[in-house]
Amino acid sequence: MFRLGADQVPTHWYNILADLPVEVPAPRPAPRPAPPGNGREGPLRPQLPLSMYRPSVGTTRFIAIPEPVRAEYQRWRPTPLYRASRLEKALDTPAHLYFKYEGTSPSGSHKINTALAQAYYYGRSGVREMVTGTGAGQWGTALSMACHPYGMACTVFMVRSSHRQKPYRGTLMRLNGAEVIESPSDRTEVGRAALRADPGSPGSLGIANAEAIEYANAREGARFSIGSGENHVLMHQTVIGEEALLQMEAAGEFPDVVIAAMGAGSNFAGLAFPFYRAASSGSTGTRFLAVEPDACPKMTRGSYLMDHTDYSGVTPMVKMYTLGHTFMAYHIHAGGLRYHGAAPIVSAMYHHGLVEATSYGQTKVFESGAAFARAEGIVPAPESAHAVAAAIDEALRAREERSSRVVLFGLSGHGLLDLGAYESHLSGETVDVVPTDEEIQASLAPLIEAP
Amino acid sequence: MFRLGADQVPTHWYNILADLPVEVPAPRPAPRPAPPGNGREGPLRPQLPLSMYRPSVGTTRFIAIPEPVRAEYQRWRPTPLYRASRLEKALDTPAHLYFKYEGTSPSGSHKINTALAQAYYYGRSGVREMVTGTGAGQWGTALSMACHPYGMACTVFMVRSSHRQKPYRGTLMRLNGAEVIESPSDRTEVGRAALRADPGSPGSLGIANAEAIEYANAREGARFSIGSGENHVLMHQTVIGEEALLQMEAAGEFPDVVIAAMGAGSNFAGLAFPFYRAASSGSTGTRFLAVEPDACPKMTRGSYLMDHTDYSGVTPMVKMYTLGHTFMAYHIHAGGLRYHGAAPIVSAMYHHGLVEATSYGQTKVFESGAAFARAEGIVPAPESAHAVAAAIDEALRAREERSSRVVLFGLSGHGLLDLGAYESHLSGETVDVVPTDEEIQASLAPLIEAP
Repeated sequence: MFRLGADQVPTHWYNILADLPVEVPAPRPAPRPAPPGNGREGPLRPQLPLSMYRPSVGTTRFIAIPEPVRAEYQRWRPTPLYRASRLEKALDTPAHLYFKYEGTSPSGSHKINTALAQAYYYGRSGVREMVTGTGAGQWGTALSMACHPYGMACTVFMVRSSHRQKPYRGTLMRLNGAEVIESPSDRTEVGRAALRADPGSPGSLGIANAEAIEYANAREGARFSIGSGENHVLMHQTVIGEEALLQMEAAGEFPDVVIAAMGAGSNFAGLAFPFYRAASSGSTGTRFLAVEPDACPKMTRGSYLMDHTDYSGVTPMVKMYTLGHTFMAYHIHAGGLRYHGAAPIVSAMYHHGLVEATSYGQTKVFESGAAFARAEGIVPAPESAHAVAAAIDEALRAREERSSRVVLFGLSGHGLLDLGAYESHLSGETVDVVPTDEEIQASLAPLIEAP
Repeated sequence: MFRLGADQVPTHWYNILADLPVEVPAPRPAPRPAPPGNGREGPLRPQLPLSMYRPSVGTTRFIAIPEPVRAEYQRWRPTPLYRASRLEKALDTPAHLYFKYEGTSPSGSHKINTALAQAYYYGRSGVREMVTGTGAGQWGTALSMACHPYGMACTVFMVRSSHRQKPYRGTLMRLNGAEVIESPSDRTEVGRAALRADPGSPGSLGIANAEAIEYANAREGARFSIGSGENHVLMHQTVIGEEALLQMEAAGEFPDVVIAAMGAGSNFAGLAFPFYRAASSGSTGTRFLAVEPDACPKMTRGSYLMDHTDYSGVTPMVKMYTLGHTFMAYHIHAGGLRYHGAAPIVSAMYHHGLVEATSYGQTKVFESGAAFARAEGIVPAPESAHAVAAAIDEALRAREERSSRVVLFGLSGHGLLDLGAYESHLSGETVDVVPTDEEIQASLAPLIEAP
């Protein structure tokens, strides 16, 4: 176990744009006007506090973390980095497996790293209510916890399939004072339209975010906040990798491969980007592997296109690997990975071969998560178990090839609110769901036809 | 936040018998032979490895923690000690509130401190299967996690009411390789008798332990293990208080009152005993307050008598505050506090006025737990929320009396697997259940009549 003192909580976030040798195309304004927001017509009001937004699109390498945010981080950061010695033994592998564990945070995942930062910036700019969409509930939980210190209200649109599968996520958010609304809901035009189209819709993060945007736009003092994908979110998460750099140094090793689960990309970026910087300065040949679910394979089977980040298409278009903003992923337990697109920065890196991607079906993911739990005594969130699956495959390859390697993977959160999913796995009820090529082409077609 | 380095994990457990100015009466052998254990008649086989048992009944003050156990502790210990500044602010109190948080452990509570120690000692003495009873499931979870490193099987009899209320506790134990059996079960004579007497029995920790004893006694290489009450268990938990002593020193304060929830007593003892030692050497006037539920008020309404620690009466009798070993507590969410007796050491201290006790109804407990969660971002286990309730009362008294005081309370575990209980609270469905004097007298009568 490699632990750091509270004084070693990073003082700066890392902005990878300072070091990226490839272009990240600029966003393009939304081509059509925002839909009616409970009577308020016209374009979206500016959503992001400039003090938060500007550094995330500039090229300053290190951005000072505001002291109040860093003080919050110090409540539980630095998070531990462990060597998974028992998993290594169980796998009989010569590989060295390390994992950075974000599940010790108050919200149980990495999401609170950006939630606290956003609550700080929005609070300072006079915002009184934060509105958001959440998939598996990790982000909503984090935001509800972050709003409280700043006396802000918090409203969360939660994807219906996750809300029903994991009712206690809602309880946790309500305990933290948030209002939780199942999405699609009848509170917004977007939600009502989605329900008309499919009354049994399981929902999606795209729809939940579109509802949150419409809802926030119609309320005085309210702002929409997003938990992944955007540059600033990726940047806030780099505290993970900055700490892990110091911890791997203490372990006397540098990773040959860095692995993390890929929803919209902030978890992956948070761990990988600081190592990208450190690896670039040497010649370590380090690989960076993003792991997505078979059910939502935006990188491995999507296209690199201009697309909206939300379902209704009111957001500016960004160039990203996407399955199309109307893509409806089949229900999987890893609700946090059901997002249709990959963060523009990660997408550009993938496009230029700086990062790799792979995907797994959930049967294999839960097998890996359960094996990890038995060996290491920590139940991974289903999202995090994707990284575990890929790490185990690396370890098994090392065994086959009789060659050692250093594997670092991100364990982004615990799965204590996902034990129902593990129960399904233990009962053999977990099934793999994979979209057909036709399904993917159908949601991509409008984007390809209309340039 | 007061954090220590991994090198500051205690090297020794503290044995309070070295410093106790009062007598703890010796146990008395069970007055009747053990019941048939699947064909094996006769007295119980010795249950405790002597290397673990002996120091816990001697008067050596500090007992070295075996290095493999300490190495396990270092995976997550020292646990954090926080000042509950936001709760202080919310209560507008001049009191200083500190809490020692055991929820960061792999099992989510303090229980793993003794589980790992027991697995080590039992494993070394050749035991291949550990069998136990568990109330809320915290203990069963901890034992299942602790057995795995030593390659031991683990069988857990879980109190029926808790098993149904919190199915995911069972999932968690099964993920860790344990077999989980709902108690009363048809696997043992004790269980079958309990089911005959009341087919709808909610079960009790006394019955679950009696089943585990019978079951273990009938299986080769199996031993019964207990999660609280016994001297050695209390001793293993003193790592909590030893760390907290250092952390309070770092905070520059010494507690005027130390508060912890009281099941059988190991959580209370673990935090309080080291402070008892430190307070005795000065004249701090520190109070020690054990908090029990109204539904199971062994200290505040029970009697100081020789009684069995299990339901079936096969265990040696110990002198303790008890409601009688056949007492059936009404169902409350804090299943871990439904045990009928208080640890002999804690009982003796209470009898001689060295510690105090109080009790709370669960409505107030959940109100306190929810207030704590909102303020501090940590959902307390219902058991731990009893300590929170008492700490809040201390804080409110300080406000009324316009006098400061330093309050230290134990937050023994997180409530992430108890969100169903919090949901009931938020929905206003939580009710208070209190035994009548007649009910208590009925289970005590046989003990008082037969000397």
